[in-house]
Amino acid sequence: MIVVLRYGATDEEVQQVCKMLEEAGYKSAVWRGVERTVIGAIGVIDEELKTRLIEQIQSLPFVENAIRILKPYKLVSREWKQETTLISVRDKIIGGEHLIIMAGPCSVESREQILETAKGVAQHGADILRGGAFKPRTSPHTFQGLGYEGLKLLKEASEATGLPIITEVMDTRDVEIVSEYADILQIGTRNMQNFSLLREAGQSGKPVLLKRGMSSTIEEWLQAAEYICIEGNPNVILCERGIRTFETYTRNTLDISAIVAAKQLSHLPVVADPSHGTGRRDMVIPMALAAIAAGADGLILEVHPNPAKALSDGAQSLTIQQFGELMQRLEPIAAAVNRKLYNLPSKFELLTAAERH
Amino acid sequence: MIVVLRYGATDEEVQQVCKMLEEAGYKSAVWRGVERTVIGAIGVIDEELKTRLIEQIQSLPFVENAIRILKPYKLVSREWKQETTLISVRDKIIGGEHLIIMAGPCSVESREQILETAKGVAQHGADILRGGAFKPRTSPHTFQGLGYEGLKLLKEASEATGLPIITEVMDTRDVEIVSEYADILQIGTRNMQNFSLLREAGQSGKPVLLKRGMSSTIEEWLQAAEYICIEGNPNVILCERGIRTFETYTRNTLDISAIVAAKQLSHLPVVADPSHGTGRRDMVIPMALAAIAAGADGLILEVHPNPAKALSDGAQSLTIQQFGELMQRLEPIAAAVNRKLYNLPSKFELLTAAERH
Amino acid sequence: MIVVLRYGATDEEVQQVCKMLEEAGYKSAVWRGVERTVIGAIGVIDEELKTRLIEQIQSLPFVENAIRILKPYKLVSREWKQETTLISVRDKIIGGEHLIIMAGPCSVESREQILETAKGVAQHGADILRGGAFKPRTSPHTFQGLGYEGLKLLKEASEATGLPIITEVMDTRDVEIVSEYADILQIGTRNMQNFSLLREAGQSGKPVLLKRGMSSTIEEWLQAAEYICIEGNPNVILCERGIRTFETYTRNTLDISAIVAAKQLSHLPVVADPSHGTGRRDMVIPMALAAIAAGADGLILEVHPNPAKALSDGAQSLTIQQFGELMQRLEPIAAAVNRKLYNLPSKFELLTAAERH
Amino acid sequence: MIVVLRYGATDEEVQQVCKMLEEAGYKSAVWRGVERTVIGAIGVIDEELKTRLIEQIQSLPFVENAIRILKPYKLVSREWKQETTLISVRDKIIGGEHLIIMAGPCSVESREQILETAKGVAQHGADILRGGAFKPRTSPHTFQGLGYEGLKLLKEASEATGLPIITEVMDTRDVEIVSEYADILQIGTRNMQNFSLLREAGQSGKPVLLKRGMSSTIEEWLQAAEYICIEGNPNVILCERGIRTFETYTRNTLDISAIVAAKQLSHLPVVADPSHGTGRRDMVIPMALAAIAAGADGLILEVHPNPAKALSDGAQSLTIQQFGELMQRLEPIAAAVNRKLYNLPSKFELLTAAERH
Repeated sequence: MIVVLRYGATDEEVQQVCKMLEEAGYKSAVWRGVERTVIGAIGVIDEELKTRLIEQIQSLPFVENAIRILKPYKLVSREWKQETTLISVRDKIIGGEHLIIMAGPCSVESREQILETAKGVAQHGADILRGGAFKPRTSPHTFQGLGYEGLKLLKEASEATGLPIITEVMDTRDVEIVSEYADILQIGTRNMQNFSLLREAGQSGKPVLLKRGMSSTIEEWLQAAEYICIEGNPNVILCERGIRTFETYTRNTLDISAIVAAKQLSHLPVVADPSHGTGRRDMVIPMALAAIAAGADGLILEVHPNPAKALSDGAQSLTIQQFGELMQRLEPIAAAVNRKLYNLPSKFELLTAAERH
Repeated sequence: MIVVLRYGATDEEVQQVCKMLEEAGYKSAVWRGVERTVIGAIGVIDEELKTRLIEQIQSLPFVENAIRILKPYKLVSREWKQETTLISVRDKIIGGEHLIIMAGPCSVESREQILETAKGVAQHGADILRGGAFKPRTSPHTFQGLGYEGLKLLKEASEATGLPIITEVMDTRDVEIVSEYADILQIGTRNMQNFSLLREAGQSGKPVLLKRGMSSTIEEWLQAAEYICIEGNPNVILCERGIRTFETYTRNTLDISAIVAAKQLSHLPVVADPSHGTGRRDMVIPMALAAIAAGADGLILEVHPNPAKALSDGAQSLTIQQFGELMQRLEPIAAAVNRKLYNLPSKFELLTAAERH
Repeated sequence: MIVVLRYGATDEEVQQVCKMLEEAGYKSAVWRGVERTVIGAIGVIDEELKTRLIEQIQSLPFVENAIRILKPYKLVSREWKQETTLISVRDKIIGGEHLIIMAGPCSVESREQILETAKGVAQHGADILRGGAFKPRTSPHTFQGLGYEGLKLLKEASEATGLPIITEVMDTRDVEIVSEYADILQIGTRNMQNFSLLREAGQSGKPVLLKRGMSSTIEEWLQAAEYICIEGNPNVILCERGIRTFETYTRNTLDISAIVAAKQLSHLPVVADPSHGTGRRDMVIPMALAAIAAGADGLILEVHPNPAKALSDGAQSLTIQQFGELMQRLEPIAAAVNRKLYNLPSKFELLTAAERH
Repeated sequence: MIVVLRYGATDEEVQQVCKMLEEAGYKSAVWRGVERTVIGAIGVIDEELKTRLIEQIQSLPFVENAIRILKPYKLVSREWKQETTLISVRDKIIGGEHLIIMAGPCSVESREQILETAKGVAQHGADILRGGAFKPRTSPHTFQGLGYEGLKLLKEASEATGLPIITEVMDTRDVEIVSEYADILQIGTRNMQNFSLLREAGQSGKPVLLKRGMSSTIEEWLQAAEYICIEGNPNVILCERGIRTFETYTRNTLDISAIVAAKQLSHLPVVADPSHGTGRRDMVIPMALAAIAAGADGLILEVHPNPAKALSDGAQSLTIQQFGELMQRLEPIAAAVNRKLYNLPSKFELLTAAERH
């Protein structure tokens, strides 16, 4: 920690800061510059004590700033653990040489819909089936998901296709039941800082896919992941899903540089969600390719057999055919960055641009 | 709803949209312009069906946009209910002629701290005591609040001063116990779209102060309030607490225009939180005055007897003396906008600017 | 400057940084912490050299960060000059006890329009007449202002009312001619970092109102002001006019906390533009009151005799009657913060809220 | 245009809007819904008149919204011209099958520096030499570029390598002289809405690379391009260079989805600037790959022979060796999206990740 005092700080004020640092277990070193006095804290103290101390020192009226030197997270940091975390889900590994493709509908709507989608995405090379049973919706006047019934239908689709399941959990009270059905728990963007839920998910022992909050910094995202790991669960998958900016043409702004940054700063695997990241079906494929080119470990995609009948998110859902096209176009990009797909996508004739519109 | 088709849409495509509208219960009207065809939906249909229909129509590849004409909320809308909602908390009314001032520490830290603060703010004219027992903290390596013990200490401070209590609830499982202690439940900015929690708070029957999500639009904020009201609880207080922008000098950007907008769009009372809104003690007073001048119905403020010892948020906490100063400076502003304080602040000599620094 | 090295930096790397600092004229001091080595630069060097050095050190692969301790501006800083700058425009002073109210149409449209507006705002207490002759418009397919003809009409309106003129200059080539007509040059938000224009305006010797860039930080705004001052022109008026955020209900988000911050950080006077800040006529009055309550030194407002005929910005223009209402409501707010109006607004019966809509 | 009236609008108010529409040359059609009346404008009128009319109608107190149906730009729109614009610069074509790689230093600093860089990037496959002679710098206390001397050095480097030149112009008064030296004029992010400069660049007849304003929407960016085209200059290259968001880890947030959107909405070629887009050398390569995977027509990159000696932007400049690495890694990505490089990059042994740090 570095403490910068305001212009004109007195010797007594310098001493007060040094005393606070030393009582906390630091050694202090004072630099008197011409216009500012700066105090450095040397040593290692308990993280909780350090955070509190920074806030307390910042609250002194003669302190201009107290600057943290070390990152405010540890367990998820690549500095602390250099090798990338590999997460096993049945026979697949997330974070390794192979990309992981998760695909399925926004919401589970019916037995027929989830079975048709699961079979379709499996045929075109998906590794994991996504689908929402509990849905966080902005308005109460909208379809809120099938709930427990949705979990059962996901299970059935999983058994029919062999695909593992990822599904969202929104309430601490549901973590146990969702964990019985899901192979991976998903924490949504609106719950990235629902700290009770993060802890509960950490205790579940299941791999957790943690979506970045739509207005969360990368540092806050990694601290949220730290909440899960601190409960003894190291299997966290980070998911960049777009941030909120001034631009309204896209639903969100998919921050591909955050994928690069998260891979540098953390050892956790990172995937991208170009469906929510753009909100527009016609942008999903190029943004998926971009995410993989930048180094993402996989994708999570919304696919629906008939988007115009979807109960939610139709405008950003690929058709099954379009998902197949994505997989075909993904393969050479994956190869260009030395990655592989687990499942070779089935080959078929791509539509021309004219036919697609 | 207005549907704009892409350039070159065919008659069949126009018919397909009309059919979807009519099956949902609308009449449709088609305008064929030179470069675009526009279809209007006339009539009133169920809100859930309408939201779904908009998404489905937007998912059609030949549709450029489906534009909602009516607001996506109703119960909280001033169009639906013109008179401002008045919320009674013991003998005070929120939303009426009198401003409501809520003050207290970020966190309840100890019996001594909460009692001293409660007495201090009561003496200077506060109406309601705030204090956190359950704390949402960005990092797991920080003080997380005293929990149930904190609730008991709040109760004791309330009894010693006669001030009602507002405190945050973060977990659906805690709503019942917090409701036993609190006069007002607070939903924090990170939980504004924790829909399970909103529903549970709605069912508690207690007044709920709903902080705006730090990256939520005004429309999303009102829809979150709608989640509480739809459970039969009309007593929602909106709280603007700053949004996340590119500016980093302040912790957040207090969006005072959102106070004006929320008062226009909704009948709910609106208060401001200049402590979190700025994150800087030396900006709290002028921003509090600005919020009241713009029409806020009250304030929620962080006050600590000794910010340099605070376990959280010291840098933005007023001292008790500064809170007294704020109340004195608030009085003429309140009068200038035809509002009153319940408690005449005790008069004392204000420090000069030079003494304050 | 504080330099933080990456984990594992070698002695040679530490020495390389020390050498760079010392060659630039600093003394260096090294702190070896457990996980990071930190190097401090002590001394005073030329500002240009310092800025370059920070960038160069940051470009070293073994450097994590180079942190500037002192602000990157000086001439505009309150640390450098404590008393607020007072700017005289004819017989009025900007930055003193009296608030300055600038009002007039977005664009000068015709002789009749500017004369009617000028007389109207003068009658209701305005101090300065605003009006655009050169207009920065997002689309080329819009009214671009009357140009030189507009300047002449402004002059005529000024002579008819005695009000000084503020008007925008957009092109370095126009600074000379605009300076002949205007009492204050206005630099618009889109030109805040048009550095050639800033320098030219600095050389004009005229007072300059510098609008904050719609996505500029407070620090960048003050550096832009520094460009003007460095040309020997100390008469800069800062103007907060709203920033771009994710919220779309308002045209911009008027950042009232930036007014407070700019007054703390700089000795320059600061005014607010609630017309552009909100883009909505029905929000202008409350936001104007809020800005003054927060400490602004004045306002700049769009007023049009008939907004529904305006060639630009009608939706955010007050009518002359509404401007009169604003002035009446402003007076008690000004008094509450110990400020005065130069001109007592003419008293008339305010409309009730019901009549206004 | 669609006009939505406020709840309770009277017949007279409906008629007033219809009259305004009809006087402007539209036919009007009225839909009376249960809660809102909506009026549609049918026909084609002059764009300037239309823009004015929308603003005027929006300024009526009984109007809730006036919604534009058609895009506010035309010349740059793909709807208006379907085939992608191809721009010839000497023997290269921008926007075709081949990617265009522009590389060079942020600033021209010396004869030696620009010659060394030009030769280095030419050897590794660059198509165009970039380099700044006039530099827009946030602070006046920084290196402002070599000016005319810089233009001459660029010319010399161009002649030595055969590479065409792109360089920034910041002042209307410099467009003529810069046009004598440059093959492509660059308009920087801070000048995207310097409309005088856009017009002047349009009149120069030179190809213009238009950087997106750091807080400009895609729609504003295309309208800025329209300013250039309307002067009779169709050769505009759009450049996405990162937008300003709340995230501070990167200097800007490179909005790769804007590349996709701009290619869909406009027929102009689009390139990416991952140097400014990230501000961090270690992120430039993956983001460059991502931009090409998403469909960009080329890249503009900062390269410096010795970033730790750079007079500006060292932290985001690639070394010449790193530029070579980028070109090698780019080739398979280009192939994966059916694009080619003009120059096969020279092959050399890439450093391992460990050696790079």
